[in-house]
Amino acid sequence: MHKGRLEAFTDGVMAIILTIMVLEMKVPHGETLSALLPLWPVFLSYILSFIYVGTYWTNHHHLLQASERVTGGVLMANLNLLFWLSLLPFSTGWMGENHFAQAPVALYGLNLMLSAVAYYILQSVVTSAHRDHSLFREALGRDLKGKGSLVAYTLGTLLALLGYPLAGFGVLVAVALMWLVPDRRMEQVMDRRGR
Amino acid sequence: MHKGRLEAFTDGVMAIILTIMVLEMKVPHGETLSALLPLWPVFLSYILSFIYVGTYWTNHHHLLQASERVTGGVLMANLNLLFWLSLLPFSTGWMGENHFAQAPVALYGLNLMLSAVAYYILQSVVTSAHRDHSLFREALGRDLKGKGSLVAYTLGTLLALLGYPLAGFGVLVAVALMWLVPDRRMEQVMDRRGR
Amino acid sequence: MHKGRLEAFTDGVMAIILTIMVLEMKVPHGETLSALLPLWPVFLSYILSFIYVGTYWTNHHHLLQASERVTGGVLMANLNLLFWLSLLPFSTGWMGENHFAQAPVALYGLNLMLSAVAYYILQSVVTSAHRDHSLFREALGRDLKGKGSLVAYTLGTLLALLGYPLAGFGVLVAVALMWLVPDRRMEQVMDRRGR
Amino acid sequence: MHKGRLEAFTDGVMAIILTIMVLEMKVPHGETLSALLPLWPVFLSYILSFIYVGTYWTNHHHLLQASERVTGGVLMANLNLLFWLSLLPFSTGWMGENHFAQAPVALYGLNLMLSAVAYYILQSVVTSAHRDHSLFREALGRDLKGKGSLVAYTLGTLLALLGYPLAGFGVLVAVALMWLVPDRRMEQVMDRRGR
Repeated sequence: MHKGRLEAFTDGVMAIILTIMVLEMKVPHGETLSALLPLWPVFLSYILSFIYVGTYWTNHHHLLQASERVTGGVLMANLNLLFWLSLLPFSTGWMGENHFAQAPVALYGLNLMLSAVAYYILQSVVTSAHRDHSLFREALGRDLKGKGSLVAYTLGTLLALLGYPLAGFGVLVAVALMWLVPDRRMEQVMDRRGR
Repeated sequence: MHKGRLEAFTDGVMAIILTIMVLEMKVPHGETLSALLPLWPVFLSYILSFIYVGTYWTNHHHLLQASERVTGGVLMANLNLLFWLSLLPFSTGWMGENHFAQAPVALYGLNLMLSAVAYYILQSVVTSAHRDHSLFREALGRDLKGKGSLVAYTLGTLLALLGYPLAGFGVLVAVALMWLVPDRRMEQVMDRRGR
Repeated sequence: MHKGRLEAFTDGVMAIILTIMVLEMKVPHGETLSALLPLWPVFLSYILSFIYVGTYWTNHHHLLQASERVTGGVLMANLNLLFWLSLLPFSTGWMGENHFAQAPVALYGLNLMLSAVAYYILQSVVTSAHRDHSLFREALGRDLKGKGSLVAYTLGTLLALLGYPLAGFGVLVAVALMWLVPDRRMEQVMDRRGR
Repeated sequence: MHKGRLEAFTDGVMAIILTIMVLEMKVPHGETLSALLPLWPVFLSYILSFIYVGTYWTNHHHLLQASERVTGGVLMANLNLLFWLSLLPFSTGWMGENHFAQAPVALYGLNLMLSAVAYYILQSVVTSAHRDHSLFREALGRDLKGKGSLVAYTLGTLLALLGYPLAGFGVLVAVALMWLVPDRRMEQVMDRRGR
């Protein structure tokens, strides 16, 4: 019950973040296909952020699925994650409208980095609320994918700051594509539990 | 439980798509009824897209209702569907503001076509997660309505591209009207199961 | 389960309608209290529509609470209601920005009238899906409040059309205030059933 | 069930309030970091309102969690709370765009004050619906945090009105920070009940 409402609120916020990002793609005034062309950087940024928010939703789903207790700390850590994700429409829009320039790509990378840190904190708080369940911890395991992403976000941000925004953007695209391969860790916990 | 959250997230995204489309109907500055007149193409486009999103919601409802397992692949296929539907406010707005001109109608038809493909993929993934339940497959049956719509979206898009945007638009309107007749396939499965 | 998803989708759409209406109140550029003054008609319109949408949500809640079956027809009738309610942010904004002028008040009254008709249809469809439960029908009873509102919306619209927009607006305000007194019909059915 | 829908609707409205506030941070036209600088008052206001809405969500969660009955009065009191919270995007945007000037800070403080009064009313209505459960009342106890906040909102508003907007803003920031320390009152009731 407790958990259900946390999930519903998170679903609501994530659904709105996904959907208002598309509002940054302003309807062009011309009626020809060529009027659409200038929108490609905004559209590409939208696709990227859609993959990221979709990935966060999927991972959040699996994390909460496997968890059993929701404490006050979990509520806080979850709101913290939603805060950073709520800034994505802004940083996505800025990056797209400036054609992947230096500062916007760096800000976008920083936004992804801070969201990843917030997710890492949430994961830790959920895990520590399950101190007795070594199975849960074991399942999260070394979390190579999560830790690798954090390193890659930092790398992408630094590349942009050092004057290579397109290389930095490339790194951020690569991480998104990696996450499109679904994560089976949590599903395995569920299976072992026989649910 | 699993299924519940997938449904809730999908409901959220579809509810927002429906509602932000109305924001494309900008409040006119004049205070007379004649100030409303120029809005009719935007309003007509809104009605059409409302029917489409409402139809997707109803069909999604029936599909998930009949299904029992949600796998990682189902989550992915569902996000893919939501991505294409999330572009509808954009293509609807562009079509309405350009009075059903050639390129906007073609883009709108393409958007519907790709959404239908995404729904078809989702349906296949849900079905394959039920490999043992021949009842489920049987119920989907030949899916004449779904396959016919896909052909019609392609036709509508082609008509617009070939220089007959109003004929293409007419085809897209006809498909929407056809879907207003409710789909009873899934309800029949439920009934046969005695639920 | 069936019912749950219908409720969730309806809640989502109504929550968004409520909240995007406030976006019509554009943040003024001045920093003095006098910069807020010109906003009063928009604010007043917002309060009125908030009461109406809140009332629809409460009545919908009671109606679905008392119902047991959701058919394809109920889904359709519900989408129809949501369509008319989704136009409220537009008609509210037009009325507020034009200081309760003739055409905008008439359109607002018409919007309320069509929403009420849609709710009446939904109520009938839900009732007919419960053909055996005379208790349900009996509880809805003569529905004086609902029928009276429909008459009042028509009256308000006509008054505006005939050149008395403020009188028409007054009627619409009066109906909203009447609905603030909670409706106990449905709660009584539940009590009688001993739930 | 009853309770579930009230929670879902509230979650939806609060999720949208949170997320549309970020739309007030308009994407700047420049592509340099210095183009972001002028946004800091809007960003700071956003953080503050995010904490407030997050706190209301958390407290609402605990209040409803501990409650057992939802009456018509509870629905009304809840809609009343949502109304005042729905004005926060407006007052937040006005305060941020005017760099914490006198009138905007006073309006923001007033908005917080009226939201707190609405929450206080909701709490009273929920409590009175539990007349027999002295445990519930006892748990709410003296509610020093809630009453103290109400005093502080009044103080902050008055300071702004008297010509000290930054001092008033400081008080409102201090209250937000105080609420970041989680409230354990309701969790204690649940524990005592052995749930």
